[in-house]
Amino acid sequence: MINFESYNPTRIIFGSDTQHLVGENTAVYSKKVLLHYGGKSIKATGTYDAVVASLHKAGVDFVELGGVQPNPRLSLVQTGIALCRAENINFILAVGGGSVIDSAKAIAAGVPYEGNVWDFYLGKATPKTMLGVGVLLTIPAAGSESSDGTVLTDEQGPYKRSFGSGLCYPKFAILNPELCYTLPENQIAAGGADILAHVMERYFSPTPSTELSDRLCEGTMKTLINNMPVVFKDRENYDAWAQVMWAGTVAHNGLLGKGNQEDWASHEIEHELSALYDIAHGAGLAIVFPAWMKYTYKEHLEKFVRFGVEVFGISGQLPHETIAELAIEHLTSFFKSMGLAVTLTEIGIDGSRFADMSQTACKGGTLGSFMKLTPADVEMIYRLAQ
Amino acid sequence: MINFESYNPTRIIFGSDTQHLVGENTAVYSKKVLLHYGGKSIKATGTYDAVVASLHKAGVDFVELGGVQPNPRLSLVQTGIALCRAENINFILAVGGGSVIDSAKAIAAGVPYEGNVWDFYLGKATPKTMLGVGVLLTIPAAGSESSDGTVLTDEQGPYKRSFGSGLCYPKFAILNPELCYTLPENQIAAGGADILAHVMERYFSPTPSTELSDRLCEGTMKTLINNMPVVFKDRENYDAWAQVMWAGTVAHNGLLGKGNQEDWASHEIEHELSALYDIAHGAGLAIVFPAWMKYTYKEHLEKFVRFGVEVFGISGQLPHETIAELAIEHLTSFFKSMGLAVTLTEIGIDGSRFADMSQTACKGGTLGSFMKLTPADVEMIYRLAQ
Repeated sequence: MINFESYNPTRIIFGSDTQHLVGENTAVYSKKVLLHYGGKSIKATGTYDAVVASLHKAGVDFVELGGVQPNPRLSLVQTGIALCRAENINFILAVGGGSVIDSAKAIAAGVPYEGNVWDFYLGKATPKTMLGVGVLLTIPAAGSESSDGTVLTDEQGPYKRSFGSGLCYPKFAILNPELCYTLPENQIAAGGADILAHVMERYFSPTPSTELSDRLCEGTMKTLINNMPVVFKDRENYDAWAQVMWAGTVAHNGLLGKGNQEDWASHEIEHELSALYDIAHGAGLAIVFPAWMKYTYKEHLEKFVRFGVEVFGISGQLPHETIAELAIEHLTSFFKSMGLAVTLTEIGIDGSRFADMSQTACKGGTLGSFMKLTPADVEMIYRLAQ
Repeated sequence: MINFESYNPTRIIFGSDTQHLVGENTAVYSKKVLLHYGGKSIKATGTYDAVVASLHKAGVDFVELGGVQPNPRLSLVQTGIALCRAENINFILAVGGGSVIDSAKAIAAGVPYEGNVWDFYLGKATPKTMLGVGVLLTIPAAGSESSDGTVLTDEQGPYKRSFGSGLCYPKFAILNPELCYTLPENQIAAGGADILAHVMERYFSPTPSTELSDRLCEGTMKTLINNMPVVFKDRENYDAWAQVMWAGTVAHNGLLGKGNQEDWASHEIEHELSALYDIAHGAGLAIVFPAWMKYTYKEHLEKFVRFGVEVFGISGQLPHETIAELAIEHLTSFFKSMGLAVTLTEIGIDGSRFADMSQTACKGGTLGSFMKLTPADVEMIYRLAQ
């Protein structure tokens, strides 16, 4: 176990009908906010109307900025920053999934900053202060509702970059599993893959003696794997959605990897895919992670044995390499069962840019900690994902 | 799963040699603090000197108040309140275990309050503001280092009472497993029982469909049960102590019971014992919990089956009542293996006050949620614990 700090001040409000609490929770921080969201879905489902009614009831005025796309863009963030400055707004209410929340965090960082907000994503500057962000979550996936991170794409690049800061934690996040009932199948699947990936990035660590973190990770993965098929079959199963949605937050609120040197290579490898080909991040992870596993599992075989036995119930009596290979097969089958592609070929991505992507992903160094990956290693992983 | 809120703003700083960070973390909040601790042990082990050196280095002045006893007393808290007022102190640094931290929280609540601090414990008033508290933890047990609660004994009563408030969360808590190497056997054992009890109070819930919380609880219990025997055999095993110490915090930081209606009857039943007979809280729990289980397990047999199979590895093929009974036996054996008494008779407590204790514990109502216990039920549990 390595030394660590653990800090997460986001207040989670979880449960049935909780969207109506958005007004009173927002009013604690501001009486005039930016209401930030994506496309038509929150209007079609009635969530938008519920939010507006709740804000009115709490006496909170708002200015709207919709239009956040998956893999949120720097250009809309710049629009949001200008809007907040012009309207003297000091709090952002994000209604949506990870893209909307990450876009809101970017605006929150950019408003009080004199330079270009992209500086933070390039590591050229660190935010000294940020506006507050509140969240009404509509998609269990990214975990951004209680994380310290934000991921953004500069579409002029195209580059997908992230930064983390203790200032990024949302002040509150409201999670109602009922809002998941109307999600389309592809978003449910990509969300499930993203949640699982957040646990796996923490779990596949080279650090020895991390029993508690291992067991918390395994419990979260098992819960997700058990409940995803239920929500696919029965879209209005509150209990199963509650497990998935809570797992999505626990997966990425920072707890599960405490004491572990975390990995995160697969996320970096995937970011190149979604930046260049604009695929959903979770969908990309379902392709990248099994390939990463096939390339790295012999590095710490015992961790893959544990994964196979504890998460997928594979017999511990089998040869260790067999357990590891079976575990990777089980994981791949889980992604397939949700209708996700598990190869790049299936989604029409060829190998023409693998060399460049590998270089960009490694940013002049190596990726990951479970196995330190050079650009040549990363290129092999892209090839294994074909 | 029931609706819930989750909020815990305590910053945890965990790992080897971290006691030297106490000064810089304290200086963030105040340049003059009350240094609050127990008896001789922190002086004998060098922890006191390390704290003083770290405070000096960070330019933090301090006034001392030692002498906190197990089952901390209202009278010392009153002394601390007067001292803070006289010295214009606005931050309390607690160096010790749960008793010291709970005493510090009480002083922190009392200083800015015009009435008697005991009002908060009687439910007559709610704190509107509190001084900040920082912690250097020396005993993994109570979980008070990142909890919103405090337990105090009015020795004039004698009454042991508690209150909770979002203001009670310590600002930071520093946890170094190396500080556990010198703990006496009885404190290690009582601490282990207390940690396990904190998980069980959340786990034994009547709420259905709580898979993630169940699995997180089971992972924490298994980690504790695996590592306690290691620290008993090998007192300077850093890795095992790190698991125990981190489990102690995770057990009581609020996460594990999210979505569950929690129980807490055993804690209330135990509080009467430690108030009247001044035994260690954890030692009392090791006696009360198995008795509570024997009395209540048929109420939700399936939860005890899960407990037996998942935590103790009992075969799920056995009859369900057998699994439950075996699980209670395994738990009792675990307590015995740490040298703890598992009956009241062993520690010289007879039945003469059971009727009064049962009435006081129930405070005119019922206790618990797994099974709602009347005073007559509680008396039966005391008898089963004989």
